[in-house]
Amino acid sequence: MKKDIETVAGNGLLHRRAFLNGGAAFAGAMMGYSFVQPASAQQLNDQPWSLEPGATVPDYGVRSRFEKNVVRTLSNPNGEPRNQHARTPHHLVNGTLTPNSLHFVISHEGDPDIDPDKHRLAIHGLVKQPLVFTMDALARYPMVSRMAFIECGGNSAPLFSKEPIQANVQALHGLVSNAEWTGVKLSTLLEESGIDPKAKWLIAEGADAPHLSRSVPLTKALDDAMIALYQNGERLMPGNGYPMRLLLPGWEGNMNIKWLRRIQLTESPGMTYYESKIYTSILPGGKAYQFYFVQEVKSFITHPSPGLAMREPGFYEISGLAYSGNGRISKVMVTADGGRSWAPAALQVPVLNKAFTRFRAPWRWDGGPAVLQSRAWDEAGYVQPTRAEFVAIRGEMTKVPAVTAFPNEHFNAITSWAIDRNGEVRHVYA
Amino acid sequence: MKKDIETVAGNGLLHRRAFLNGGAAFAGAMMGYSFVQPASAQQLNDQPWSLEPGATVPDYGVRSRFEKNVVRTLSNPNGEPRNQHARTPHHLVNGTLTPNSLHFVISHEGDPDIDPDKHRLAIHGLVKQPLVFTMDALARYPMVSRMAFIECGGNSAPLFSKEPIQANVQALHGLVSNAEWTGVKLSTLLEESGIDPKAKWLIAEGADAPHLSRSVPLTKALDDAMIALYQNGERLMPGNGYPMRLLLPGWEGNMNIKWLRRIQLTESPGMTYYESKIYTSILPGGKAYQFYFVQEVKSFITHPSPGLAMREPGFYEISGLAYSGNGRISKVMVTADGGRSWAPAALQVPVLNKAFTRFRAPWRWDGGPAVLQSRAWDEAGYVQPTRAEFVAIRGEMTKVPAVTAFPNEHFNAITSWAIDRNGEVRHVYA
Repeated sequence: MKKDIETVAGNGLLHRRAFLNGGAAFAGAMMGYSFVQPASAQQLNDQPWSLEPGATVPDYGVRSRFEKNVVRTLSNPNGEPRNQHARTPHHLVNGTLTPNSLHFVISHEGDPDIDPDKHRLAIHGLVKQPLVFTMDALARYPMVSRMAFIECGGNSAPLFSKEPIQANVQALHGLVSNAEWTGVKLSTLLEESGIDPKAKWLIAEGADAPHLSRSVPLTKALDDAMIALYQNGERLMPGNGYPMRLLLPGWEGNMNIKWLRRIQLTESPGMTYYESKIYTSILPGGKAYQFYFVQEVKSFITHPSPGLAMREPGFYEISGLAYSGNGRISKVMVTADGGRSWAPAALQVPVLNKAFTRFRAPWRWDGGPAVLQSRAWDEAGYVQPTRAEFVAIRGEMTKVPAVTAFPNEHFNAITSWAIDRNGEVRHVYA
Repeated sequence: MKKDIETVAGNGLLHRRAFLNGGAAFAGAMMGYSFVQPASAQQLNDQPWSLEPGATVPDYGVRSRFEKNVVRTLSNPNGEPRNQHARTPHHLVNGTLTPNSLHFVISHEGDPDIDPDKHRLAIHGLVKQPLVFTMDALARYPMVSRMAFIECGGNSAPLFSKEPIQANVQALHGLVSNAEWTGVKLSTLLEESGIDPKAKWLIAEGADAPHLSRSVPLTKALDDAMIALYQNGERLMPGNGYPMRLLLPGWEGNMNIKWLRRIQLTESPGMTYYESKIYTSILPGGKAYQFYFVQEVKSFITHPSPGLAMREPGFYEISGLAYSGNGRISKVMVTADGGRSWAPAALQVPVLNKAFTRFRAPWRWDGGPAVLQSRAWDEAGYVQPTRAEFVAIRGEMTKVPAVTAFPNEHFNAITSWAIDRNGEVRHVYA
């Protein structure tokens, strides 16, 4: 194993410049990747697919049959009369976008089958002129596009457990996804309807059977809220609100009302079910934060992670996702020795506001025990807390319920993956 | 119709600040959109989907059945033994990304059904150490993500016709798409194999039945070439090269070898079929540009466009796509009077290198005839030519073959849409 490359933190963390600046100074044989085979060891053979015509190109592409195991995990696969969670497999995707078919979904009574020609959006309440919009009418307005993550307030809740739950990154952090959303700014529509000066909140309501509704401060509505019509270029997926949803970049997923049909401007919040009983953040004394909307700065490592075993010592890339509801990610640090020493990760550009940023750090695993962590900072000055710091304020749970049923919210502390001498990766507290 | 908003060019073009700066100064009632209904005219009724449980959330999401007409058009839907084109419906998508299922495909003998565990990539020829990579080995290398458009050299070729062909934006410009690609920089692998100083080119070869191969200057390979493994977060689509393709940002689509299995470093180009007989740019005297790799600066309007009829006078957003193989888009101008007067369009941020940039311009159609055009500039200083300028050098064709069979390449001049008093949109030369 060659030693030319600069080690910048304990247990084999290498300098992020190793490849992000083009790689010329460090890459190639000097890196000593040493896990590829000389070509002479294996000739190129024509496989069957190189010897006969392939399949006819379809009008709407379908992924390879060899990818059929890349799926969301379902908490309620038979659609029993309760909520359903579908979690993104962050260890099996890459880049910064979540493919539409793998975007997380929480549905409280299934995905409605909405005919867009019959769907309407009403804006009423404390407005000067109540309005009803068809899809055709919305298509006439100026549009904007932006990347934005959406995260369930309950994402990562299993980490409230007093003992680390043995589960993978999909089970622990799969209720956050990232997409390019295109639609009409809500401010454009509110200025069209006119706003009564008494209005301070709005209540947004979905057309799903539970008529799920949440209250949103008008300041957010006039800032960066969007009536989203397209998700990664296509119309929204049924589970993500087809034909339209409210997008509140950086704010609790449940507030980004799907299947949106109504926005009522009001003086006060509606104190609806999901903002009074559910989606409050419980504190140790039994009190709770209410109207705790922002998804604060967070990161986790996707590669390696549980289930992605490491077969041999040598070079690996540590890669993961960072995001903040308060703005852009400003820095991500990684450690391979459980926090004794840290090195800065490279951030994939462009680093966008309230969107996933992929971070990457080169690592040479010596085959011994290691504990990997990532820690993110945002441009607003927030830093991701350690788990010890976090539970000191927010508490933890001694009882360990099912992974999908933690009754607490907004966990954003550091996640730790331990690697043993066999290369197995496990969830630990460190 | 209100007049408060600033008109900046003839025939109703409004100032781009009308909404891009948040809209407060211009938007709302002042815009006089005037195509929405007062809420009193139509009450919100519970539709069936609001009254009963919805569908069970699937492990891999599927779009709404109401979107089934949003598909690629196929030149060879029965997979006869010749090439197949699948064109992106740019008038039916929005934002900057092309969904994977709608990414354009040209396949010369169908899409191979490659088992990634059996697929290998070999790097050989003028290298110090020939190497063979498995998918697992490639996964160990440092990765990068970037947005990039890919455009067929033959995209827009129908505009070589002496008379404007009556077809929509999908038929005319559907052989370009844009995605986030994630993979390993080719420079990383070439530095791993070591490069013989005599090497000046590489020949890349696919594992499809035609073993399609193209020659690439080594300078491009060491600049921004990538072995792409993921497309918009997921593994590549079968039609886009699963499990790996060569990505040469900004260069002719055919060179971005799909189903990549071999890279041979050489002193000279291979003079392969697709770079000698095909994908040369024919000049009026019968000579041709060879090795004309860059897809130069281009733009076209997607909304409105043929098939998207305008039902009544009033406010519309003109929206389209601009891109350049030479770098970032620096400016897009639009006209509503066939080029007599122009206004700058707003560019959706972030404006990325060699990737789609969506432009938008507000327009108040007075119901009279209009001719819409867009014209793009890039940061390298190139400007999209008028069609007259372009055909003066490159020639045009008096014979009008089928829309899919134009034997000429690299058309990047301005496209014109004429709107008549009925709101119908037609392709014209203006």
